Amino acid sequence: MGSDSDLPVIKKATDQLKSLGIPFEVHVYSAHRTPEEARAFAINARKNGFGALIAAAGMAAHLAGAVAANTTLPVIGIPCQGPCLEGLDALLSTVQMPTGIPVATVAVNGGANAALLAAQILAVEDADLAAKLDAKRKADAEAVLAKDAGIAERL
Amino acid sequence: MGSDSDLPVIKKATDQLKSLGIPFEVHVYSAHRTPEEARAFAINARKNGFGALIAAAGMAAHLAGAVAANTTLPVIGIPCQGPCLEGLDALLSTVQMPTGIPVATVAVNGGANAALLAAQILAVEDADLAAKLDAKRKADAEAVLAKDAGIAERL
Amino acid sequence: MGSDSDLPVIKKATDQLKSLGIPFEVHVYSAHRTPEEARAFAINARKNGFGALIAAAGMAAHLAGAVAANTTLPVIGIPCQGPCLEGLDALLSTVQMPTGIPVATVAVNGGANAALLAAQILAVEDADLAAKLDAKRKADAEAVLAKDAGIAERL
Amino acid sequence: MGSDSDLPVIKKATDQLKSLGIPFEVHVYSAHRTPEEARAFAINARKNGFGALIAAAGMAAHLAGAVAANTTLPVIGIPCQGPCLEGLDALLSTVQMPTGIPVATVAVNGGANAALLAAQILAVEDADLAAKLDAKRKADAEAVLAKDAGIAERL
Amino acid sequence: MGSDSDLPVIKKATDQLKSLGIPFEVHVYSAHRTPEEARAFAINARKNGFGALIAAAGMAAHLAGAVAANTTLPVIGIPCQGPCLEGLDALLSTVQMPTGIPVATVAVNGGANAALLAAQILAVEDADLAAKLDAKRKADAEAVLAKDAGIAERL
Amino acid sequence: MGSDSDLPVIKKATDQLKSLGIPFEVHVYSAHRTPEEARAFAINARKNGFGALIAAAGMAAHLAGAVAANTTLPVIGIPCQGPCLEGLDALLSTVQMPTGIPVATVAVNGGANAALLAAQILAVEDADLAAKLDAKRKADAEAVLAKDAGIAERL
Amino acid sequence: MGSDSDLPVIKKATDQLKSLGIPFEVHVYSAHRTPEEARAFAINARKNGFGALIAAAGMAAHLAGAVAANTTLPVIGIPCQGPCLEGLDALLSTVQMPTGIPVATVAVNGGANAALLAAQILAVEDADLAAKLDAKRKADAEAVLAKDAGIAERL
Amino acid sequence: MGSDSDLPVIKKATDQLKSLGIPFEVHVYSAHRTPEEARAFAINARKNGFGALIAAAGMAAHLAGAVAANTTLPVIGIPCQGPCLEGLDALLSTVQMPTGIPVATVAVNGGANAALLAAQILAVEDADLAAKLDAKRKADAEAVLAKDAGIAERL
Repeated sequence: MGSDSDLPVIKKATDQLKSLGIPFEVHVYSAHRTPEEARAFAINARKNGFGALIAAAGMAAHLAGAVAANTTLPVIGIPCQGPCLEGLDALLSTVQMPTGIPVATVAVNGGANAALLAAQILAVEDADLAAKLDAKRKADAEAVLAKDAGIAERL
Repeated sequence: MGSDSDLPVIKKATDQLKSLGIPFEVHVYSAHRTPEEARAFAINARKNGFGALIAAAGMAAHLAGAVAANTTLPVIGIPCQGPCLEGLDALLSTVQMPTGIPVATVAVNGGANAALLAAQILAVEDADLAAKLDAKRKADAEAVLAKDAGIAERL
Repeated sequence: MGSDSDLPVIKKATDQLKSLGIPFEVHVYSAHRTPEEARAFAINARKNGFGALIAAAGMAAHLAGAVAANTTLPVIGIPCQGPCLEGLDALLSTVQMPTGIPVATVAVNGGANAALLAAQILAVEDADLAAKLDAKRKADAEAVLAKDAGIAERL
Repeated sequence: MGSDSDLPVIKKATDQLKSLGIPFEVHVYSAHRTPEEARAFAINARKNGFGALIAAAGMAAHLAGAVAANTTLPVIGIPCQGPCLEGLDALLSTVQMPTGIPVATVAVNGGANAALLAAQILAVEDADLAAKLDAKRKADAEAVLAKDAGIAERL
Repeated sequence: MGSDSDLPVIKKATDQLKSLGIPFEVHVYSAHRTPEEARAFAINARKNGFGALIAAAGMAAHLAGAVAANTTLPVIGIPCQGPCLEGLDALLSTVQMPTGIPVATVAVNGGANAALLAAQILAVEDADLAAKLDAKRKADAEAVLAKDAGIAERL
Repeated sequence: MGSDSDLPVIKKATDQLKSLGIPFEVHVYSAHRTPEEARAFAINARKNGFGALIAAAGMAAHLAGAVAANTTLPVIGIPCQGPCLEGLDALLSTVQMPTGIPVATVAVNGGANAALLAAQILAVEDADLAAKLDAKRKADAEAVLAKDAGIAERL
Repeated sequence: MGSDSDLPVIKKATDQLKSLGIPFEVHVYSAHRTPEEARAFAINARKNGFGALIAAAGMAAHLAGAVAANTTLPVIGIPCQGPCLEGLDALLSTVQMPTGIPVATVAVNGGANAALLAAQILAVEDADLAAKLDAKRKADAEAVLAKDAGIAERL
Repeated sequence: MGSDSDLPVIKKATDQLKSLGIPFEVHVYSAHRTPEEARAFAINARKNGFGALIAAAGMAAHLAGAVAANTTLPVIGIPCQGPCLEGLDALLSTVQMPTGIPVATVAVNGGANAALLAAQILAVEDADLAAKLDAKRKADAEAVLAKDAGIAERL
């Protein structure tokens, strides 16, 4: 994450990763205040055994792009809503990457989906993880249907 | 792609896939006009050997989300610019997915980056492909530096 | 509705339907988490006697479009305001449907108008219902004029 | 339509109506320049045998709302793209109607869908028209699949 | 005003009118719920002695345009911020009027300025009122300068 | 106008003024490049016999506000579409004036309406001009109805 | 600042200036309510020994531009978020300056960065100040890394 | 510049620098494709004798921020309009910088103003350059007044 103010968004990601049994590291590295550390982390990520990187940042959200510029691992960007502009600044700063350096962007504040996307990427070659994701999908669907079953009496 | 009018965007993706030697299939399936085919394709994609899916659509761009709802493979969404609203409609329709069903969104009309992101996903467990991506990065950087070398005389 | 968090918006719709004596069913079906149920409901809606369908969803609001793709009954879409972007994401995702699959979109969070629009549709061939709608219009106008009569003293 | 500059959009609607065998009238009535005529048309529409009204207008697009204020027939609004602002002005002016007076809004410049939505409304009680709409859906799907069949060779 | 929920905005206008000694009437007339009353008021406004009309409305804010369509008196429109979209819907619905029917639009929620603009219009031929406006300008400037004088100690 | 690139927009205004027989002056004064001239013009406008001022500018369109800050005559602002951002920059820069200094804003590029609004302001105390405006309204309405009469054969 | 309501934003600027030991003056001058004072201040700024000017304003934020029009010193503009539109109005009004009169615009409400930018400008020829800025950068980076060190236990 | 497609925008900057006699270097360095070169240039800029840096980039325009993260020289950012979104993506990516790392942002495609701002920065301690800037201002004003003198006959 680019700032510890993004922690609530990243917490949604780490909660998902924990429940799927996926090991992870969390760091506060700013694209602008600690560019060296962000860069070094990205350059070494593949050889350090990471399979996907998640970057969360707000405003002129450059972190995901700065990380993506220094690795060919998949980089997932989470645009974080700042104090104004409704997250549109972070969304456009994250998703509108130039040709050559993609960032896999999820919804504004979409911490949980960033983790699920990372899991889907790791599950391409990991049948056990794929099975866990399928099971989670089924559970999510059942939760919706349980709400459907009880909705009439809530009107 | 959701409509053959999106072909120029998808062409940028298939050009990248070809140059990286990644096999692919291309289909025109509309989330709204042929929902069954889009759904069947997504449901069977993993067992048919696909490692990642790319969906390109414009306006109320539901294709990526409709595909993602039916697979736990990574799904990459390309928002396509329509006749008005500058692609903002497709961007928001693609990226703002609810928790549980992520879509890895790239820039508006970002066909090339969608393919590169797919390649990065496949390269997590494929060192040869990772090497090709690293080589492409180097070549891209050299192309920029070649332009830098010649820029003064173009002023 | 796509999530039970949309219940306050749908409640405004069901309140109108009740006051007009129009029978209805309410369901929680997600375009992404329970696509089968949403699809099955839409496919069977006409033969199950529905005259119009209302779908409320937020963010990348695909529900109305997913329902509309599976029926030729009129489908009314309510874009719901999410935690950021002021409902613009849901509005564009709902209204910008491609040719062939219209969604009758009402205002962001416009639950009451969705129900009134459904009633207007049913009233095309139902003179009693049309009379009720005319009466409600008159009552609404009288309520405005009553406020007009008392406004001076509220300044 | 509010101005004859909207004719290309309305033409897409009348083409659909003709192909479905639905009789219609076309008028140029401005909410602002000929408010009386727009109002009189709306007030008399039901007794003149209309089942649904379509209003197309650009910029501060008040026509659909002005018509809807004077009838309880379903009113479909088509926001038309003007010389600037990408149709966002017309979209918001058409869709953001206050409680009590719904306008069934379709996509910017969505003339064809406005007609199809009108047909769907009329088909609620007209099984023949519903069958025509179902057939058109099938034909549309087949057209997509025909494009799918030929897409590989267009790359 | 189009709804009594706009009263706080109109209150800012009437406070200015009172302080300038300009007589006024306040009404709640909805462009959509009481179109006849809004229209009748506008048609008769000039002969009833009004010199300018102010219309405040939110969302698809048609009131100013509907009034302007029925008089050639100057009509001032105040876009009111609604529950979402930050007033952008009302602003575009008010200001983007088609050629022939201008609305003099002020800022979102700009009740005070609407009144001051009305006063400026009336002051074109009223030297006393113009003098009052000049005096108010001077007082406003002095208030700013008084704040300037005290600002250093507030840091 | 703030730049002679705004001339096509101002031309629409002067055409209206000519046809209504209203005398006018046209100037190119930039709020930023010739602030003194803009200011001097505004300060002296009332005593020089002007009844209303029209300011057209694009981008960070300050001209109308800069003029309005130096006169209590009514100032009409025309936001002009620049090379990007669809005129939204000029619209917000013109209309969002702070309390105390109103600008009567018309649509983006709305030159004709700016002139008509100026005419309406002058007509408050000029029955002949009011009659001309009423006549123009009638002619505009007749032009619409003439188009209505011929529209069916243009489909 | 254009209004004392902008004080919290300016306070962030003066706090930075104080900590860097840069002398400054603070004023409340409105581009619209006290244009003379704003203009006089700008015209005399260079000869009064100022090296850079900072202007903060909201809504149709003309202050930075009005100041910049009257000096060739660097002028830094801070767009301030107003009661609606998320600061987009102030941002566009500040940054979209016409050729010839630049305003160095920082983020919405970006008081601290405005001061740091001013310091960077003064530091071009002031090695001591440049050293202070470098030291602050290092301290900022260390603060990020300290947060990084403690982030794992906050999850 | 981040890409040689930004050359027309940078050309406007270098034309100004040439006419003011300010020496400069031009480079094509991408924040994403050649991050090392961009970083190295920024780190060494002050000791290499630069007084200000200008960075032009489009889409997710990170170049100015990436440069600013590696120097305490003033960095001027030019957001460049890309193929869609009207430059809003580049504007927000450039201007919305987090506290600590300011970017002095000019208008979308504002190459000339970026150069003038750089000149103003250098002129803080360079009376000759300040005099040139003052002279240019006078010439610009005279050009406007010359246009004013001839505008009447162009109507």
